[in-house]
Amino acid sequence: MKFIGILGSTGSVGQQALDIVKEHPKKFKVKFLTCDSNINELIKQLVLFKPNYVSINKSEVKQELKQFINSKNMDCQVLSLKDLIHKVKVDIVLNAISGYQGLEPTIEIIKTGTDIALSNKESIVQAGHIVIELAKKYNVNIFPVDSEHSAIWQCLVGEDKNNIKRLILTASGGPFRKLDKSKFFEVTKKEALNHPNWSMGDKISIDSATMMNKGFELIEAYWLFGIDLEKIDIIIHPQSLIHSMVEYIDGSIKAQISTPTMKIPIQYAFSYPDRFAIDKLDNNFELWKVMNFEGVDLEKFKCIKLAYKAIKLGGSYPTVLNVSNDIAVDLFLNDKISFEMIPKIIEETMKKHNYNKNPNLLDIKYLTKWVEDFIPNMVESL
Amino acid sequence: MKFIGILGSTGSVGQQALDIVKEHPKKFKVKFLTCDSNINELIKQLVLFKPNYVSINKSEVKQELKQFINSKNMDCQVLSLKDLIHKVKVDIVLNAISGYQGLEPTIEIIKTGTDIALSNKESIVQAGHIVIELAKKYNVNIFPVDSEHSAIWQCLVGEDKNNIKRLILTASGGPFRKLDKSKFFEVTKKEALNHPNWSMGDKISIDSATMMNKGFELIEAYWLFGIDLEKIDIIIHPQSLIHSMVEYIDGSIKAQISTPTMKIPIQYAFSYPDRFAIDKLDNNFELWKVMNFEGVDLEKFKCIKLAYKAIKLGGSYPTVLNVSNDIAVDLFLNDKISFEMIPKIIEETMKKHNYNKNPNLLDIKYLTKWVEDFIPNMVESL
Repeated sequence: MKFIGILGSTGSVGQQALDIVKEHPKKFKVKFLTCDSNINELIKQLVLFKPNYVSINKSEVKQELKQFINSKNMDCQVLSLKDLIHKVKVDIVLNAISGYQGLEPTIEIIKTGTDIALSNKESIVQAGHIVIELAKKYNVNIFPVDSEHSAIWQCLVGEDKNNIKRLILTASGGPFRKLDKSKFFEVTKKEALNHPNWSMGDKISIDSATMMNKGFELIEAYWLFGIDLEKIDIIIHPQSLIHSMVEYIDGSIKAQISTPTMKIPIQYAFSYPDRFAIDKLDNNFELWKVMNFEGVDLEKFKCIKLAYKAIKLGGSYPTVLNVSNDIAVDLFLNDKISFEMIPKIIEETMKKHNYNKNPNLLDIKYLTKWVEDFIPNMVESL
Repeated sequence: MKFIGILGSTGSVGQQALDIVKEHPKKFKVKFLTCDSNINELIKQLVLFKPNYVSINKSEVKQELKQFINSKNMDCQVLSLKDLIHKVKVDIVLNAISGYQGLEPTIEIIKTGTDIALSNKESIVQAGHIVIELAKKYNVNIFPVDSEHSAIWQCLVGEDKNNIKRLILTASGGPFRKLDKSKFFEVTKKEALNHPNWSMGDKISIDSATMMNKGFELIEAYWLFGIDLEKIDIIIHPQSLIHSMVEYIDGSIKAQISTPTMKIPIQYAFSYPDRFAIDKLDNNFELWKVMNFEGVDLEKFKCIKLAYKAIKLGGSYPTVLNVSNDIAVDLFLNDKISFEMIPKIIEETMKKHNYNKNPNLLDIKYLTKWVEDFIPNMVESL
C-alpha cells in the first residue's frame, strides 16, 4: 500500500490520478488533496476518497470547506498547503498544480524528503538548477508525469545513462501543425484549445498549440535526465502514439508506445518500479495503421526557439520564459491578446529583464513579480 | 576483454560478427572460428583475426586448411567441431550455423557452461524443450541474435517478466507481402531471394518469403521468453524499423527501433549488459517519414499457420516442421520444387510422421533422418 498526496487534485491530471487510486484500492490510499479554488469538485473527492487532510488556496471558500467537513463529521483537517506538505507523511506526492505556482510546493515537498510525481513541469523549467540540486541533497526521486518524460524514463529502465546517444522528444505538432504561419494572426481560442490527440487543461492545450510545451519539455529533459541540449532532438509525430524515445550509442532506439492516455504516465509514477494492470486500454496496430514523422519548423513555432535560447543562455532566462509564457497564455485565454502575440511578448520580456546568472528562489520570486508587472504594462502600451 | 568463439564464421551473420570484433579490438578477441566448407573465406579470416583454434566441416578441405596454417607458421590448431567446443574456454560462443545442423553444437556449448549468442534459431525450434531445460541445468544464458528477439530482449531489460501482457513480433511481410496468393505458383527463386529490407543468407531469405521465418520466431519467442503462445502476436510492419515490441499489463509498449542492420543484435549479444558505439548508423525519422502496420493473412502465409499448429501440438511436431522446412527450402533453392510446394511438403510431412510426445535428442536425430528420407521420396512420387 502506497500513501499518496495530490496537489491540484481538481485539475485534469489530478482527477485522472484519483481514477487510478479508485481502480487500485489495495495499492494506493490518498492521504491528502489540495486544489486552487474548485470547491465543488474537491468536496466530491473528499466524499469519495476520504483523505485525512485537505487544502484549498482560495481563502474565500476555506470556511465553506470547513463547514462541509464538520457537517459530515469527516475525519479531515483543513490546513495551509505548506503545513500540509510538512505535516503529513506520504510515500509520494503528485504535484499536478498548473503553471509557475507549482514551484514553491515542489521545493517544500523535496525538503520533506518525499518522492515527487511531477506533473508541474514549470517547477523544472523555472528553477531546474535549484530543484535538481535540492533533490540530490535530500535524496528525493523526481518521477516525471507527462507522456514524453515518462516515455524516456521507461526507455531508460535497466540501461546505463552513459550509453545514451540522444533523447528524441516526440511532438504531435498540435492543432496548427499544417496551418501556414502567416495565418497565426487569425487563430481563435477555440481552435487553439482543440488539441488533436489529447484532452487536457486549457493552459497546457495552448502550450501545445504554440509548441511551447515542447520547449518546456526540452528544458525539463535537460534537467531531469542531465543530458546536454545537443543530445535532445524533437520530431513531429502527429498520431501521438510514440511518446518519446532514447537512442543509445550502438544505434539502438527504444520507444514507448501507447494509445494517447495520461493514465499510464501517472500510474507508472505511482507504481514504479512495478506496473499495474490498466483495463480498457486498446493498443491496436492494425487499426492505427500508420505512424508519421516530420521535422519541426522553428521559424513557425517560435516558442521552441525561445526555449532553446533560454536554456542556452541559462541563469534567469528560463524563469522569464516560463513566467512570461504563463501570463501571455492567460491573456490569450482572456481574449486580451492574439495567438501570435504569445511568442512576441515572451521574447520582448526575455530581452528587457535584468539577467541574473544564478538566481536563487528569492531572485526568482522577484523576477516573477517583475514579469507579472511588466507584461500588462507592455500590453497596454501596444 | 571478452573471448569469443564463432560457429559458422563464413556465413552472413558470422562475417558481420567479425566486423564487430574488428571495430572493437580492445573489447573482443576471437579464440576460434568454424565453418562448413568455405575454406577461402575462412583462410582470409584466419589471417585477419588469428584465432587459436579452427574447425571446418567438409573433410575434403581439412588437409588444405592444415597445410595453409603450417605454411604460414600460424599458432592455430585444427580440431573437430565437438573437440573445439569442449577444449577451448571462451566467454561466449556465437552459433551462426545455418539450419538444423546447428542443434548439436548448441547442446555441446551448453554442456560446457558457456553463454551462447544464438543466431541458429533452429536449435530452439527443433528442440526447444531440451535446449531450454539444459540451459537452466547448466546455468547458461542464451542471448538471441536476430533482430526480433534481440528487440524483445532489449525491451525487457529492467522490467519484470510477470508484467508482460504480450510480445509483438514485427514482420516485414517479405518480398511477397503484396502479391496475391494465387500468384505463388509462378514465384521465381530470384524474386524469393530479393528481401526488401535485409541482406541475408539464402536459406533465411526464403524463410522470409514464405514467412516461415516468423513462424520460427514465434516458436523461438515461446521458448526463449517462456511466454504462452496466446501472448505472442505478429504484426506486419513493411519498413522493418521497429524490430519487435513488448506490451506490459499497464498498456505501455516498449519498441526497439533502428535502421535495418544485424550489427546491433549481434553486438548487443556480445556487449550485454553494456552497449558499445556503432558508427555510421543513421537513424533518421525525418527521412523515414512513415511506419505502416497491417495484419497477417494466415491463409496466404501458410507456413506461419503450420508453425502455430506445430507448437500447439508440441512434442515432435516442431522438429518435423523445422527439418521439413530446411529440406523443402533446399529443394526450392536447387530448382527441384516450386515456391508454393514448400508449405505443402511441410504439412504433408507433419501429417505422415509418427508423433512422439516428448522426443529426446536421439529421437530427434532419427526423426530428422526419417524426414530427410521421406521428403525426396514424396517429391519424386509427385
